[in-house]
Amino acid sequence: MEKNQVHVFAPATVANIVCGYDVLGFALDEPGDEVVIRRIDPPGVQLKEVTGDDGRLPRDPSKNTVSASVISFLNHIGRADTGVEISLHKHMPIGSGLGSSAASTVAGLFAINALMGHPLSRRELLPFALQGEELACGHGHADNVAPALLGGITLIRGYDPLDVVPIPAPPSLFASVVFPHVDVPTRDARQMIRAKVALKDAVIQWGNIAGLVAGLFAHDYELIGRSMRDVVIEPTRAILIPEFYEMRRLAMDAGALGFGISGSGPSVFAFTQHRDTATRITKTIQEYLTERGIESNGYVSGVNAEGPRELA
Amino acid sequence: MEKNQVHVFAPATVANIVCGYDVLGFALDEPGDEVVIRRIDPPGVQLKEVTGDDGRLPRDPSKNTVSASVISFLNHIGRADTGVEISLHKHMPIGSGLGSSAASTVAGLFAINALMGHPLSRRELLPFALQGEELACGHGHADNVAPALLGGITLIRGYDPLDVVPIPAPPSLFASVVFPHVDVPTRDARQMIRAKVALKDAVIQWGNIAGLVAGLFAHDYELIGRSMRDVVIEPTRAILIPEFYEMRRLAMDAGALGFGISGSGPSVFAFTQHRDTATRITKTIQEYLTERGIESNGYVSGVNAEGPRELA
Repeated sequence: MEKNQVHVFAPATVANIVCGYDVLGFALDEPGDEVVIRRIDPPGVQLKEVTGDDGRLPRDPSKNTVSASVISFLNHIGRADTGVEISLHKHMPIGSGLGSSAASTVAGLFAINALMGHPLSRRELLPFALQGEELACGHGHADNVAPALLGGITLIRGYDPLDVVPIPAPPSLFASVVFPHVDVPTRDARQMIRAKVALKDAVIQWGNIAGLVAGLFAHDYELIGRSMRDVVIEPTRAILIPEFYEMRRLAMDAGALGFGISGSGPSVFAFTQHRDTATRITKTIQEYLTERGIESNGYVSGVNAEGPRELA
Repeated sequence: MEKNQVHVFAPATVANIVCGYDVLGFALDEPGDEVVIRRIDPPGVQLKEVTGDDGRLPRDPSKNTVSASVISFLNHIGRADTGVEISLHKHMPIGSGLGSSAASTVAGLFAINALMGHPLSRRELLPFALQGEELACGHGHADNVAPALLGGITLIRGYDPLDVVPIPAPPSLFASVVFPHVDVPTRDARQMIRAKVALKDAVIQWGNIAGLVAGLFAHDYELIGRSMRDVVIEPTRAILIPEFYEMRRLAMDAGALGFGISGSGPSVFAFTQHRDTATRITKTIQEYLTERGIESNGYVSGVNAEGPRELA
């Protein structure tokens, strides 16, 4: 029986994982966005409502990343005659560095694919999600959409052709995530990064990413922590994030394996081996920010192996 | 009972493994060097003989990497009063890009440690081997000495402090290795490399090294092959190696997973999933070189998990 309506949650994601700029990312249990897609009689894709965005997202169906990727999807499967209306409920901050647009886009694509009876596999949805990122962010990077869509930890081994490799998370790995309410536009954060890096720094970086992947496979928590260093991107991006180094000190003192910027920031995250450590770190950093007059959102999460899911 | 003489074989190594410049390496079953260390009455370290080097290596015990590192070792353990004589038998080409100096140094250190009753662990010998590399090559890189000493595939996660991570080899992984007799001095090969790399190339490189490590852990031979790409170093180094791209084409056509330069060259290697494929590749490349008047040495090897070993 074809469904009349599908309601999907898709998760926020942490891109880069400190040493894996543009290639690594993982999915969180929370926060995330929800999309409801319902069949309607007249053909075409309508954007019925967007909530939780303070009016910041486009309402034009051809410009909103969710509806635009649903349109692409329906064209691709030869069902442009389908009529649907989309509701997007944002439950996570925009411009936070937590893959906000990726969560919305993936929720929409997962929903439309379910509504149409799963004509595409999950992996086959990835190019449509990438198009959505291009529309939302001006660049088609997959380090948020891949984990948002596939769940777990993902490596973008290469883009030409797109080669997404799942990296297993060790059994006990948690994330403390804090989004400080300071404004760091993604485009600016990317533009600050230098186009050239010193070879010696690149060597340090690829030693670390290799170490991180080895640590994740081998369940070597110490190695995971030692490898979470970024000598290429973080020194520049951290300038834009007030209290970054103090937040790191607090996280490491509280038992974090490693700490860094989530995506292009301003959100920060720590990996921990135990949930209570992540809880303590989130609380400590949020209290510290509050004392300095900086509001924030805090999260504690496992590594979300499932990715998007249908809600009842 | 303390030994009077120890005879050790230490293996050649392939540094970089294409995408892991300065951080990855693995040990071969062959070729390799042999060192015999024998107690003598007068205190001090004597270099009794060096064979197989066509007279190219220093005979002064303070300048030869084998005797110099044995002297460092004896000083470190407070046994500078020991009298030994060293014989170094080179069974592999110098300046080949196969870790010739590392094999000699490691053989010497493994031998003196055994002769003295194993005062140090294998890992504790690493700093002495690094000193030896510094003396022999003018730089203290560990990507040859670490696999020569520890066996298997090794990752130098970082140098400060030195952090060597063993990477498991999948059960069926073989190497075809060919050393073409063309002269590419290590120092020149290093100096040609640019000090800066484009960030976009660095991103491709760390996607690939992460993919290679993931493929090795996951026994995903296709992923290992797809990840063996080098956009940073190889384009420069390949210029110095005649017929490089034709050798690659021959190797890939014959079923190689991946192909590249061993260390700074001119040796080249291919990874294969089966021994007979490696045998075929070595034969094909050597025949091709012979037709063009280039002599070569060819090897077929597994990944040598043991590293150095005492000979009877």
